[in-house]
Amino acid sequence: MQKGLLIIYTGNGKGKTTAALGLVLRARGHGMRVCVVQFIKGKWQYGEIEGLSLLGELVELHIFGKGFTWLSKDMEKDKEAARYAFDFAKEAVCSGKYDMVVMDEFTYLINYKIIDEKDAVEFLVNRPKDVHVVITGRGASNALIEIADLVTQMQDIKHPYTIGIKAQKGIEF
Amino acid sequence: MQKGLLIIYTGNGKGKTTAALGLVLRARGHGMRVCVVQFIKGKWQYGEIEGLSLLGELVELHIFGKGFTWLSKDMEKDKEAARYAFDFAKEAVCSGKYDMVVMDEFTYLINYKIIDEKDAVEFLVNRPKDVHVVITGRGASNALIEIADLVTQMQDIKHPYTIGIKAQKGIEF
Repeated sequence: MQKGLLIIYTGNGKGKTTAALGLVLRARGHGMRVCVVQFIKGKWQYGEIEGLSLLGELVELHIFGKGFTWLSKDMEKDKEAARYAFDFAKEAVCSGKYDMVVMDEFTYLINYKIIDEKDAVEFLVNRPKDVHVVITGRGASNALIEIADLVTQMQDIKHPYTIGIKAQKGIEF
Repeated sequence: MQKGLLIIYTGNGKGKTTAALGLVLRARGHGMRVCVVQFIKGKWQYGEIEGLSLLGELVELHIFGKGFTWLSKDMEKDKEAARYAFDFAKEAVCSGKYDMVVMDEFTYLINYKIIDEKDAVEFLVNRPKDVHVVITGRGASNALIEIADLVTQMQDIKHPYTIGIKAQKGIEF
């Protein structure tokens, strides 16, 4: 049986979700079953959705809720959607149907106190031992880092926006 | 016409090649044509090779040479192979056949002085303006960073080897 790793890609730099996509590709290459849960609606666009779909039925993508945002007019509804997404992710991890579950932008749920950090930590620690979980998002909390097996911080050294280049298809979205 | 970006994933942390794979997936999702050049033979294994093959004929993978290594018994031959791979990558970038060219582990060619940094920089700066180039590898030189549009440094916060966990299929390889 594989030892399921808890992997976190965090930091302010670009490449967190992108690296998670790369992990999905690699896992799928091994014939693993992957479930991707995207917690922020509208963040993912055509490129990645279409790209994942090419990997066939072993890879599932679930995009949840309205996304939560501080611009939202109905914060409570947004939070509810995010909590629903977390419940879905928990079920996926425990279902035995997947070898890897990606929780994209999950850190925000903790950082904005939409879900309880203790609940998340307890769930992750006690999850089935053979499931890889990949968490992305800025500002992974110390408690998350503490329980993780692999944490990479992505740090911006240079960013195209800062030098006046627009977001490019196939790169940013 | 798209503006081709020069993207560098560097740093000692994990996720550089993985993020490049994610970019390939996203670009392919947009129907872009991608050429991946892997400069170190033996680094890539079944998972990523098989994963990329699922993306169909718009994505090509070329693994070159014997790889170069300081353990090699025939360093000169290794360097020759690496230089040949660089020539191949240059042709790919200029061919008009690809929207994105990934040069995986390319930094090592510069850092170990297998190719001339000035040649590489000159080539990259003068390449066709609509081709994205993605370079990965530790220790990207200042000159490379200088000419790049997007540079992310991957920094190890926590690494499974250091806590006694073996490399896992689908994650590391």
